[in-house]
Formats: sequence, C-alpha cells, structure tokens
Amino acid sequence: MPYTISPAFSPALLTDLYELTMLQAYFVERMSDTAVFSLFVRRLPPQRNFLLACGLDDVLSYLEQLRFDQPALEYLESLGRFSRPFLRSLEQFRFTGDVYAVPEGTPVFADEPLLEIEAPIAEAQFVETFVMNQIHLQTLLASKAARVVEAARGRQVVDFGMRRIHGIDAAMKAARAFHIAGVHGTSNVAAGQAYGLSVSGTQAHSYIQAHDAEADAFRAFARLYPDTVLLVDTYDTLEGVRQVVELARELRDAFRVRAIRLDSGDLLALASGARRLLDDAGLHSVRIFASGSLNEEQIDRLLSAGAPIDAFGVGTDMGVSRDAPSLDIVYKLVEYAGHGRLKLSPGKSLLPGRKQIFRVERDGTADHDILGRRDDAVAGRPLLEQVMVNGRRCRTAPITLDEARAHASGEIGRLPARVRALLPSDPPYRVDLSPALARDRDRLERAHEA
Amino acid sequence: MPYTISPAFSPALLTDLYELTMLQAYFVERMSDTAVFSLFVRRLPPQRNFLLACGLDDVLSYLEQLRFDQPALEYLESLGRFSRPFLRSLEQFRFTGDVYAVPEGTPVFADEPLLEIEAPIAEAQFVETFVMNQIHLQTLLASKAARVVEAARGRQVVDFGMRRIHGIDAAMKAARAFHIAGVHGTSNVAAGQAYGLSVSGTQAHSYIQAHDAEADAFRAFARLYPDTVLLVDTYDTLEGVRQVVELARELRDAFRVRAIRLDSGDLLALASGARRLLDDAGLHSVRIFASGSLNEEQIDRLLSAGAPIDAFGVGTDMGVSRDAPSLDIVYKLVEYAGHGRLKLSPGKSLLPGRKQIFRVERDGTADHDILGRRDDAVAGRPLLEQVMVNGRRCRTAPITLDEARAHASGEIGRLPARVRALLPSDPPYRVDLSPALARDRDRLERAHEA
Repeated sequence: MPYTISPAFSPALLTDLYELTMLQAYFVERMSDTAVFSLFVRRLPPQRNFLLACGLDDVLSYLEQLRFDQPALEYLESLGRFSRPFLRSLEQFRFTGDVYAVPEGTPVFADEPLLEIEAPIAEAQFVETFVMNQIHLQTLLASKAARVVEAARGRQVVDFGMRRIHGIDAAMKAARAFHIAGVHGTSNVAAGQAYGLSVSGTQAHSYIQAHDAEADAFRAFARLYPDTVLLVDTYDTLEGVRQVVELARELRDAFRVRAIRLDSGDLLALASGARRLLDDAGLHSVRIFASGSLNEEQIDRLLSAGAPIDAFGVGTDMGVSRDAPSLDIVYKLVEYAGHGRLKLSPGKSLLPGRKQIFRVERDGTADHDILGRRDDAVAGRPLLEQVMVNGRRCRTAPITLDEARAHASGEIGRLPARVRALLPSDPPYRVDLSPALARDRDRLERAHEA
Repeated sequence: MPYTISPAFSPALLTDLYELTMLQAYFVERMSDTAVFSLFVRRLPPQRNFLLACGLDDVLSYLEQLRFDQPALEYLESLGRFSRPFLRSLEQFRFTGDVYAVPEGTPVFADEPLLEIEAPIAEAQFVETFVMNQIHLQTLLASKAARVVEAARGRQVVDFGMRRIHGIDAAMKAARAFHIAGVHGTSNVAAGQAYGLSVSGTQAHSYIQAHDAEADAFRAFARLYPDTVLLVDTYDTLEGVRQVVELARELRDAFRVRAIRLDSGDLLALASGARRLLDDAGLHSVRIFASGSLNEEQIDRLLSAGAPIDAFGVGTDMGVSRDAPSLDIVYKLVEYAGHGRLKLSPGKSLLPGRKQIFRVERDGTADHDILGRRDDAVAGRPLLEQVMVNGRRCRTAPITLDEARAHASGEIGRLPARVRALLPSDPPYRVDLSPALARDRDRLERAHEA
C-alpha cells in the first residue's frame, strides 16, 4: 500500500516560499556569514506552567537529510522567480551547521531557547519552517500530556486520539510525544510499529451493536480474548455491568476479564455504581477504565471526588491540546556575522546573541532559571547541549525515546509542586536575565536609537 | 531527500488497535454481513453555523490502496494477539464496498452524514480511524477558512500557517482545504507543488535584521524582486513606510514595489498611517498587506472600522482552527445485516439506517434540510451521491480541487445570510427528520425497550 500523505511532493519544499525568496537574495547579495537563530516561546498559554521540549530527533533527521531533488528544482523553476545560477546552487544545498538544544523531555519556560541553530545564513534561515513545525507540534502535545499524566496520579493514561488529531503526521508524533511525557500507551498501531510503543484497544460500540444482544457480544469477545476490557455503555451502563457479572457466573474459573470501560455519562456515579456491582459479585480484580471526552481537569475532579477509576483513555482534548492548540513559538535571528541582532516590533522584541539556560536548584528542587549568554559564568546547571556539529549529529544525540521519558520524569519531578500543578503557578516560575545578557540587549537598543 | 514523516511504518496500520481486535472477532465469529457506517458531526461548535465538508478525495485514495504489507503482518504477529489464520486473511484484505458522500465543498449541519460506507462489516469497521482522521481534519480547517474568507469581503486571504499547523500532513491538507474554502494561496511550497496551488511569500524580519540598515534590505530586495512586498515593522512601522517612500524617490520609474506588509501592532492605526504616507507620496498603487495573529473576527473588525488593508496573511488561528480545534465527529454503525442499529449512550444516541440529506431551497436560497432515509421521497435536492462502487471510485469522483472550490462558493452563496455570517445564526439553520426516518428510530427504540 503505497500510501503517501498527499499527492507527491518534494520533502525539501516543506517550507514557506519566503525562505526561498530570501535565500536567492542572500545568494545574489553574497551574504554567507554565520547566523544564529534561536527558537523559543514568547509567552506560555495561561493554562501551562511549563512546556516540555520535544521534537528534536525529527529536526536532526531533517537537517541531516535535507536535499533538493530534481522535481523540487523543476517546480521552483516553473515559478519564474528563481534564476538558473541560484537553482544550480540549490542542487548542492546541505545543512552544514551546528545545533544546540535542550534534551527532549526538558521543562522550559517563556523566552528560553529550546534550540539554537548556527550556520551560514541561508542554511539557518531555510530550515525555519520545518524546524518550527515539528518542535511546535511535539512540544505542544508533550506539554499537554504532562498535565494529563500529573492529573492521573500514577494511574495509566492511554492515547486514544488518532481519529481527531490533526492528520497522520500529528497522530504519529503525538504518540511519540505522549510517551516522553509519561503516557502509558497508544491506540495508534502504526506508532506502535514505528516507535516500539505499547499499543492497546479492545472493542467499539459498533461491535456490541452488531450483535443482537449485548451479552452475546461480551461472551464472544471474552472467549476470544479472555483478559479483555468490555465496553459496557452502549445501551445502559449499569445494565451492561450486570451482563459482565452474569458472564462471570457463567464462565466461573474461566472468567478472566481484566476491566470494564465506561465511555459516557456521569463517570463518577457510574464508576461508583459499577464498582459496587462488581465488588458485590466478588469481582474485585475487574478494574474500571474510563474514556469519553476526558481531559486533565475532569480526571483531577474525578479522582478528587474518589471515583474508583483505575486507568484513563484520553483522546481529542490531549490530541489537539484543546485548551491551548498552539504556542507562541518563534525562530528568530539573534546574531549575524558576529553581531547581535535586534527586533523592536511591538510586543515582539528580542534578546540578542547565543544563549544558555542555567537552572538553579536548591535541595534537589528547581528554584529559578537564569537566561544568559552562552559563555556566561553564572550559577546553575546549563540545559542546552551541542547536538549537531557541521551538519552531523553528535554521538550522544538523540537520546532514545525511553531515555527522554526518564529524563522528563526526573526533570518534572524536580520542579516545584506549584509549577507541576494544574492550576496557574503563583508565583510563576522565575526566569532571570543574566547581567551580561541584559547589558548586551541594552547596548544594542541604545545603538539602534542612536 | 528520503524524508518520511517518522520512522518507517505500514500505512495500513494507521488505525486504532481495537479495529484489529474487532476484526479478528468478526473473523472468528464468521460475521461478514454488510454493515453501514455513517460519518457525521453530533454538535457544531458554538462558533460555527455550518461545516464545509472536505477530505473525501484522500479517503477514496486510501480505500482504493488499502493493503497489509509484510512488515505490518509481522508486527501484528509480534503482538501475540492475532492468530495465523486471521493474519493470513489480512494478506487478502481489500476494501470492496460502496461509498456515498456529499461532494467536497458542501455545507453540512449537525447529524447530517458527510459520508456513508457500506461494506462487509470487517472492511467498513477497519477503515474508521483513518477515514475519521482525514475528514475531521479537512472539514475542520475548511469550515474555519470559510469564515475567514467571508470576513475578508472579497480581499485575498493567504495561508501562512505551516509553521504552527499540527505537523506535515495537516500543513498539506490545510492548504488543500483552504483552497476549497476560497483562500487565495499558501506559503507552503510543497502544497503548491502537490496541488498546483498559488504560492506566495517574500521576506521575514530576519532578512531585514541581517542587513545593517532597513533601507539597505529594502533596496536590495526590490532590486532582485521589483514587484515585491516589503515588510515594514521590524523596528518602527511608520518609519519603515517612510523608507519605502524614500526608496520610491530614489528608484523613480524603476520603483514597482507592489505592497508593504504590516505584521504587528495596532493594524487599524498603522494601516491608516501607512496609507496616508503612501498616498501623500503619490504611491496610490502600493497596497497594504496585513498579517500577525489574525483571525476572522479581527479581520471583520478591521474592515468594519475602515482599515485600508487590501489583503490578509492568516496563520495559526486558521491553521489550528483555534476557537474550535476539533469537531464532535463520529463514525457509527447504523445498519448491520439489513437491520437498523441503535445506540443509547447518554447524549450519544443514533439514527438508524442509510440516509440522505435533502436541501430545500426557496428562490435560490437554502431554507432548511430534511434528513431522511436514503430511499425517502421528500422534497429537496439530495446531497449524498454514490462515489465508490465495489471499492472503485465512480468516474465522476472526485471532482477536481477547483471544481470543489467553485462548488463551495456556489453552495455557501446559497446559504441564508445569517448562516454565512460570523455571529451565531439566530435561528440556527433548520434540519428536520423525515417522517419515515423518525418512525424507524422510534420503532427500534421501542423494540429495544421491549
């Protein structure tokens, strides 16, 4: 099945046209000095106390593989805007720069660079669109999932989002990002195959409906999959639970159904009622799995109210990050030809130069960060590492998915409780500018005014 | 550049695991009768008066190409849940069913099927996840874009969303859906190549910043691209406009800059100020292009206030459908083995059987719809057409992208003004049930209660 995600296109053309018009201008103007671009989020959404950096591995693969194929060059020529010499230069176009980044699974805050790219300006400029697209998507989804995992208080969370996540690429990357954020598994089989993730899923309402009686559906499914999860809410939830109890009586020792799933209605009342029915029948080991338009706030409310729910299937809300479906992420020129660069657009001003994030911890808990110059000598643990040299990954990059997950768990665990919590952190996590970086900015702004 | 959207996976595995566990159950239980699944949206988001159906072409390609490749079968075997005979049956698995759908670009309302799939139950069930994913994404984005186009009152709208749209597949499908909804062009070069869409884009702030003076950047860019658009807000917007005026004086007859672009700040005040500066310099033909966190409400407000803006670049808000980033879309079994099927979960009940939408028009304007049985004899224009027979597209399907765009424009034009408007339609567009369909539902519910 040669399914491609759309009619054929050249991967190098996954970019905004202006990257290419600018590239031709740099080519004509012979501007080839080193540029430093910094990727960061200007403001966190109000419902996020931190972001979980994610997506670096796909960015590094892209940078290593970037080539203009013949169809790309022919298409660009057909636009009538690009000269032969420029198009010929694209044949040899490669990414040859350096990349500094925080490891995937690192919590970051507003203004802190998730990565910085240093390369001849054409290369560093051109990759903007793709790099932003992937880091934005995966950081967005990992950040949302970290909240859902926190809300579930150690109970398993499973990704059910594929049907409403925005497209195939997002469905794959979501499962990946969710794993890093601590989600237990996914319903997405291709993600299981591609990333080695745990996959799960049993039955839909349609399976129940296709049988003349709910009990027939349960019996047939449990015969084939003895340790399955049975979906009980197709007609009447508690009646469905009674059918499961009935099946247990019928099968006796052969009954090994692992859980029931509730997918609609008042989950607190239904889970409590279901738990009582199961316990009264001695089915203490049958667990309760809940799904159906869940998000971190509902999970938190259910568990705070004592709902006897053992695991959660979370779909659309996590998969589209519904309460904050985008981040104010940007990729900005901060240095060119050795000089820091400014931008003063209202609400969009920039900090110049190569940077480092220093995380200052006290007794194993993060207290605040210092955003400084790359070469700053300030207190704290530096978070950005070099991950690519001259267009090749460093041997240590990337860490594996499971390493990123462990890293995320450790780093989130070191955040103050108020920052890990679902409610807005009061006060927000503090990020200071180092004196040297503040001086650089002030000097540049004064120079511009002069 | 062999960029794939993630580590390798088998396209047939782009599905939820439960589709496969159910498939094995149908296989073991020898359930192979025809099932009818209906895809519809249960409730429209409060900010949508209608949805614009989109994504059918990708669904039909998928259905035609669906095959389990060897790596897929090996992966499924490795899960330890599937029997050899079942896996062997998957080798021959093809979609052989029929599809009825509304043409892409058709406005639809809550409960109205965008498509119905009729096939042996295993086939109709299995395709659920992918079909939902694509129709959801493209309908979501086309519906949002139709609002932006309406707000722009005939001015051009360009898609700038690629950097924050959720992943690569969504960025491609977004450009496609936006075209159908009436958007003029896209910055996404791969979408231009794949779909033949108009692409546009000139320069970013980084290009301006990389030059020591804004005026140098403008001069160099206009020399290379005489009819370009110059971005004027990097440092001080009106000062940037003055630099453009200066450049016009310098270049005289050679000055052919087509437009300036504003990307931040108070767009009403800045566009008015810029217009005055340009007009005072006799540059009446230089147009004003606005971008920067725009959506349909801001565009409507700007134009209502008389902002002299000639075209809009719209990015994230349209690209993630920020005010409604998902639809309550479902794919439900409505008939199996010739019998209508029910579901009674709270808030999620179903209408049974094969359906048709009948649009009743008065004087060329849609008055209301009747949702009826497929074979109903009621007034109105039927909207669902057969687009696939025995797993093959009908010769008339799909219509081309431009046909879909023209269809959308015509159909949206026939909606009542209150339904096309941005504010919630009062009253909402009326969708009645046909007497025959209502009878079918009542009969089934009574039979279930008995």
